[in-house]
Amino acid sequence: MNSVEVVRGGTVESRHAVHVAVQDARGRTLASVGDPSVLTFHRSAAKPMQALPLVEEGVAARFGLTEAELALCCASHEGEAEHVAGARSILARAGADESLLRCGAHAPYSSSAARALTEAGERPGRIHNNCSGKHAGMIALALGMGWDPVDYHLADHPVQRRMADEVVRWSGLRAEAIPTAVDGCGVVCFATPLDVMAGAFARYTGAGDAGEPAGEVVRAMTTHPFMVGGTGRTCTDVMDVAGDRVFVKLGAEGVYGGGLRGRGIGFAIKVEDGGRRAVEVALVRVLASLDVIDSEEVGRLARHGNPAVRNTLGDVVGEIRAAFELPVLSSVGD
Amino acid sequence: MNSVEVVRGGTVESRHAVHVAVQDARGRTLASVGDPSVLTFHRSAAKPMQALPLVEEGVAARFGLTEAELALCCASHEGEAEHVAGARSILARAGADESLLRCGAHAPYSSSAARALTEAGERPGRIHNNCSGKHAGMIALALGMGWDPVDYHLADHPVQRRMADEVVRWSGLRAEAIPTAVDGCGVVCFATPLDVMAGAFARYTGAGDAGEPAGEVVRAMTTHPFMVGGTGRTCTDVMDVAGDRVFVKLGAEGVYGGGLRGRGIGFAIKVEDGGRRAVEVALVRVLASLDVIDSEEVGRLARHGNPAVRNTLGDVVGEIRAAFELPVLSSVGD
Repeated sequence: MNSVEVVRGGTVESRHAVHVAVQDARGRTLASVGDPSVLTFHRSAAKPMQALPLVEEGVAARFGLTEAELALCCASHEGEAEHVAGARSILARAGADESLLRCGAHAPYSSSAARALTEAGERPGRIHNNCSGKHAGMIALALGMGWDPVDYHLADHPVQRRMADEVVRWSGLRAEAIPTAVDGCGVVCFATPLDVMAGAFARYTGAGDAGEPAGEVVRAMTTHPFMVGGTGRTCTDVMDVAGDRVFVKLGAEGVYGGGLRGRGIGFAIKVEDGGRRAVEVALVRVLASLDVIDSEEVGRLARHGNPAVRNTLGDVVGEIRAAFELPVLSSVGD
Repeated sequence: MNSVEVVRGGTVESRHAVHVAVQDARGRTLASVGDPSVLTFHRSAAKPMQALPLVEEGVAARFGLTEAELALCCASHEGEAEHVAGARSILARAGADESLLRCGAHAPYSSSAARALTEAGERPGRIHNNCSGKHAGMIALALGMGWDPVDYHLADHPVQRRMADEVVRWSGLRAEAIPTAVDGCGVVCFATPLDVMAGAFARYTGAGDAGEPAGEVVRAMTTHPFMVGGTGRTCTDVMDVAGDRVFVKLGAEGVYGGGLRGRGIGFAIKVEDGGRRAVEVALVRVLASLDVIDSEEVGRLARHGNPAVRNTLGDVVGEIRAAFELPVLSSVGD
């Protein structure tokens, strides 16, 4: 079995098939569940790699981006006040404004932020898009590199070509072997086999541990988990609990990627049907299996790892639970 | 393969496993996809059977329920004005009021209805719950039968015991063989193997065709499709297009059930992971395979059977498509 189960009244009602790959930086698969080679769009899990050129090219330093703002460049955020202010600040530091943003407008994911916006008589804008930090960072990258920032989201723009180069660099695949498509926020997204994605995270984490620029991105995420997600988000709560042991990033359609700091290990998770409710449960099981979090921490993350199913009256009528074990090879944790 | 595929830029990004069973009234499986015996909570797909006692016991006639109101008793509705007014009317005809409702409050599913409610300074109430028609019908049943209507949603109340009797009657299973749980709206829900569910729909449809009271429920649904769902709902659009050839009902967690009028055939669909986006796609494929709808009608139902995936800018970036065939035995359509 490689599933996450949705249980109602003691009976399994629905099952999500889960695929997991754990690799080291040399591309050795240390553990897996399901089909570790399933072709997977990284979606927003690619954001830590997409933020790297800001550091590596000195753009973040030149524009004076704060560590929290760098974390926001890696975020799928809730549109809370800090996130919106952070995206505006990145744009301001780069000498740009919101009119350059090419993500679509949507209401803040945070229901209280959405309500506050409505009560203030404002309409949701592109700045509230959950990817606005990444987009602001891409505009800053373009301006910092001397590229025309207009339409930075299109595949033939130097920004997106640089993003593709990062995926090639960390995955080790040739560009021609990486299917692309248009992401929910309008930029290019990239697909690789799941185990290759895990290996990319292992190499990225290892580079950071070795003092390379990736370490600045990872440190920004683990130091400012709120900026990577927001209130109630799994990424935020996991990094709040785990401290600097791990960095994790959700991707749309049931994806997670992450790296274990100081251990040279990366992992990637794909829920076959794209279900977010299942990938968050799977993430907690994977982190526990890899000894990143202990049982007390698993308990503190129960709302993500073993959430209750409630009905419209608020009564608990079931649960979502991981129904797989991650068989870990002995070399993990070496 | 028994899947519905979510495609992004020409690459399959996610896959939903789909199970389908088609039976006749004698319980012969005429066609299937995946595992036709998968244990399946009927959820709201049970509503046509749950509405039947209103007709059979003469309660609908005694209280003067309209045909549209009977259709609303079978609905998972959008909370549009007609649905809310209908639920209030059912309660008024029975001499009851909204305070008896035991479903939870939630905003109308229809975004325009939800906005209108906010603009009117009203808060979402239990009457806006998508199951309020069924709940109003259950209260009417209790009052019509001389039962205390208070807490009609609990498993030991005569209303819920009668609902269980209907599931036993149409499924042919013993009550002890039918797992139960609490539904999203607070009433009891029932699980049977998927093929048994299909057989139940076949028998129910056949009874209606033979002039039994089930026919009144089926006719109410096919005559008033809007009351069964609302603007943009798959149930509504399918019955709008197919006329009186078929009645269909969505259930939560990726379920559909339905019956082919005049053909003695029932079907049931379960998406293994509970994904609604997949079961609606599967439904259109199943109805086309069973010659319930022709290719022109499949085209008119494309927003349900082959919907576009759009990004936050509104651009089409992919599609959801059925990737299974329903092998139909020759006896179908006899």
